Amino acid sequence: MIVTELIEKKRFCGEMTREELQFLIDGVVDGSVQDCQMSAWMMAVCINGMSEREISDLTDIMMHSGDTVDLSDLPGIKVDKHSTGGVGDTTTLVVAPLVAACGGTVAKMSGRGLAHSGGTLDKLESVPGVDIEQPLERFKSIVRNIGVAVIGQSGDLVPADKKMYALRDITGTVQSIPLIASSIMSKKLASGADAIVLDVKTGNGAFMNTLEDSKRLAGEMVRIGKRLGRRTVAIITDMNRPLGMAIGNGLEMKEAIEVLTGKVPKEDPLVEVCLTLGSNMLVLSEKAANIDEARAMLIEALDSGRGFRKLKDMIRALGGDTRFIDEPELLVRVNRLIPFYPIKDGYIGAIDAKKLGIAAALLGAGRFKKEDRVDPAVGILMCRRYGDAVGKSDPIAYLYVNDEERLDEALGLLKEAVVVTDTPPEELPLIYDIIG
Amino acid sequence: MIVTELIEKKRFCGEMTREELQFLIDGVVDGSVQDCQMSAWMMAVCINGMSEREISDLTDIMMHSGDTVDLSDLPGIKVDKHSTGGVGDTTTLVVAPLVAACGGTVAKMSGRGLAHSGGTLDKLESVPGVDIEQPLERFKSIVRNIGVAVIGQSGDLVPADKKMYALRDITGTVQSIPLIASSIMSKKLASGADAIVLDVKTGNGAFMNTLEDSKRLAGEMVRIGKRLGRRTVAIITDMNRPLGMAIGNGLEMKEAIEVLTGKVPKEDPLVEVCLTLGSNMLVLSEKAANIDEARAMLIEALDSGRGFRKLKDMIRALGGDTRFIDEPELLVRVNRLIPFYPIKDGYIGAIDAKKLGIAAALLGAGRFKKEDRVDPAVGILMCRRYGDAVGKSDPIAYLYVNDEERLDEALGLLKEAVVVTDTPPEELPLIYDIIG
Repeated sequence: MIVTELIEKKRFCGEMTREELQFLIDGVVDGSVQDCQMSAWMMAVCINGMSEREISDLTDIMMHSGDTVDLSDLPGIKVDKHSTGGVGDTTTLVVAPLVAACGGTVAKMSGRGLAHSGGTLDKLESVPGVDIEQPLERFKSIVRNIGVAVIGQSGDLVPADKKMYALRDITGTVQSIPLIASSIMSKKLASGADAIVLDVKTGNGAFMNTLEDSKRLAGEMVRIGKRLGRRTVAIITDMNRPLGMAIGNGLEMKEAIEVLTGKVPKEDPLVEVCLTLGSNMLVLSEKAANIDEARAMLIEALDSGRGFRKLKDMIRALGGDTRFIDEPELLVRVNRLIPFYPIKDGYIGAIDAKKLGIAAALLGAGRFKKEDRVDPAVGILMCRRYGDAVGKSDPIAYLYVNDEERLDEALGLLKEAVVVTDTPPEELPLIYDIIG
Repeated sequence: MIVTELIEKKRFCGEMTREELQFLIDGVVDGSVQDCQMSAWMMAVCINGMSEREISDLTDIMMHSGDTVDLSDLPGIKVDKHSTGGVGDTTTLVVAPLVAACGGTVAKMSGRGLAHSGGTLDKLESVPGVDIEQPLERFKSIVRNIGVAVIGQSGDLVPADKKMYALRDITGTVQSIPLIASSIMSKKLASGADAIVLDVKTGNGAFMNTLEDSKRLAGEMVRIGKRLGRRTVAIITDMNRPLGMAIGNGLEMKEAIEVLTGKVPKEDPLVEVCLTLGSNMLVLSEKAANIDEARAMLIEALDSGRGFRKLKDMIRALGGDTRFIDEPELLVRVNRLIPFYPIKDGYIGAIDAKKLGIAAALLGAGRFKKEDRVDPAVGILMCRRYGDAVGKSDPIAYLYVNDEERLDEALGLLKEAVVVTDTPPEELPLIYDIIG
């Protein structure tokens, strides 16, 4: 096969055969397809799209481009969850222990934050001692012993995606449903779970801004998962505001602990999304007959403190200092707390979650380049939500600051991000759709 | 400016500003825009197109990306011609001397052949001693003395195009009217001519296969030329057959000499296209009041042998051995001549000119990679034309062969290329349109 002919095929809206996709992906991994060629092909995919069959084949081929994790020697149905990325979205740290406390088996490989979105690995590392790089056998033994482990990617999983993602990042080809769906699903499938619950964020803080695109992406991923033999459900949740109150790694770990220790009311959006994700995970795991039963089990695990103990067990197993779990204030000790006031009395009428995420990253909570280091203690803690009444003299957020170099920039973004209106805004749905 | 944002702008069908195009092209030349980024952007251009304003700006910016040739110290209107590339198309070697013989000033920088299409430089070099690399001052002095010089590109002309073309060649982005038009015109404009006659080939042996695409390309190039202050005319000519009878460098030089020495009838398609191109060059040069007058001048220069003497003067000025011009049989001495017979009696009902060009290249007349060397003597000499009656026992072509390594492959292509039919085919137009 000739690479330029394959590129031209997609350029002129042709449908690639499985063999042609295999040839391209093999070439990406062994270097015989050049970066410029792959970039041109991916741009053609972005503009001209792919058929469902092409997307499934691409995902399957990418998944097998490197190592795959075999979890079959662990008992029962292994369940994973994945979020497409949001702001103030610490669900994994709540859901994974809760599901394990209800008998589920959660073996999850997670990622780091990039740009405005946070990453579970960074949040775990806010606890001193935690080592997210665990050998595969150790990872499995933690799962076997306590029912849950969340670690970084182990081994050479999906090398094709690593190369493709690095190219997409610099060639304006990130936003593409076929490329996003195959990237996410190839990694999920390669990491060995039998069942996958996808949290597809939609709104101004998500990578998919419109509900229509989010539904298409969710539908595509569920289709891929099922076609390749995994139980898959996608839940479309709102990201037109931060999900929780905390944006920052230690702050979000602290918030997860507060949820798991009953300090956050059940009506809280973060808790609600966690219960929705978790109940779907339990049903897919065959630990509950239906969603209502699963939900009741999760609430029991929450109220009894069994979920909290699972988190603590996992942190201990990963080498973390559990004093920080018992006294989460230790996670967020900073040099300076800066209150942020609204410009006038009124209501929080709109929040640009992406700008909030970037503001937190500017304080050191996130990274703009892969090699940036994060400060676990810094970030933004909201004390008012979307729709809340606010008064000029009451702070609506606190900035947790160590390095003040980009503080003014962060404050400027915060001002842009929070819109105060004279009348309360329309309520936003929290969960738009469940596709399974 | 951020490169990925510029790529995304074109991806989502936006119109680039002049400053944005300048930023991209500067980046291509200085290396700050990576190959993978430029490839993605060019693919977006291929699929989403460009506005007329964008194409003109891109051409102007590319033209100024390196050296430009200043011919203003040469007297009169300097006229150039350019062919988009065809098979058996040796017009430059006929037209350039003829126009000079009629008082025109032809200062032309030419290119090499690639794939199925020939290049004037290779044809010139079929004459031993010819050196197509001439310093600019020497080039100008030849033009000043004899009115015509055809040489290779001098100096660092349009470095942006060199990089972009090398990328397009391997990323399936060759076929794009905005990219082809800006590539051709930036080089023409940078080489300093005041007037340009474009020979836009259309048909199975051309880079543009359909008349519609050829017209669009021609219109685009004429518009660019005029917008950037040059007299420009495009002539759309047929390439559903080789234009002349010879395909190969020495063979085409020999055919040009035969035209200039009156051995080819005026009705011959090669002569007709040369007269059409030449008369337009003379009118743009203000050496003739109209096309008819120009045509009469060219025929006089042909019949009197003044055109032939100009070719000989130019070959001598470039260091060539003029014995080969006087005895052109010397140009095509090969080890073996192989006659090619039709499979049955009938008519030549169709010719795939591209396949013929590739067959000649396989014999050593052309190159598949830039660094390939050509054999000046080899190629294919047709002895029947499109539409001619043929008999099974009469050769329709002779293969001029030295290296027989790929002879079978060439013969196979030749068989595919020439279709023999029982009834004569429809006549093909030779000149489809003149756009000026």
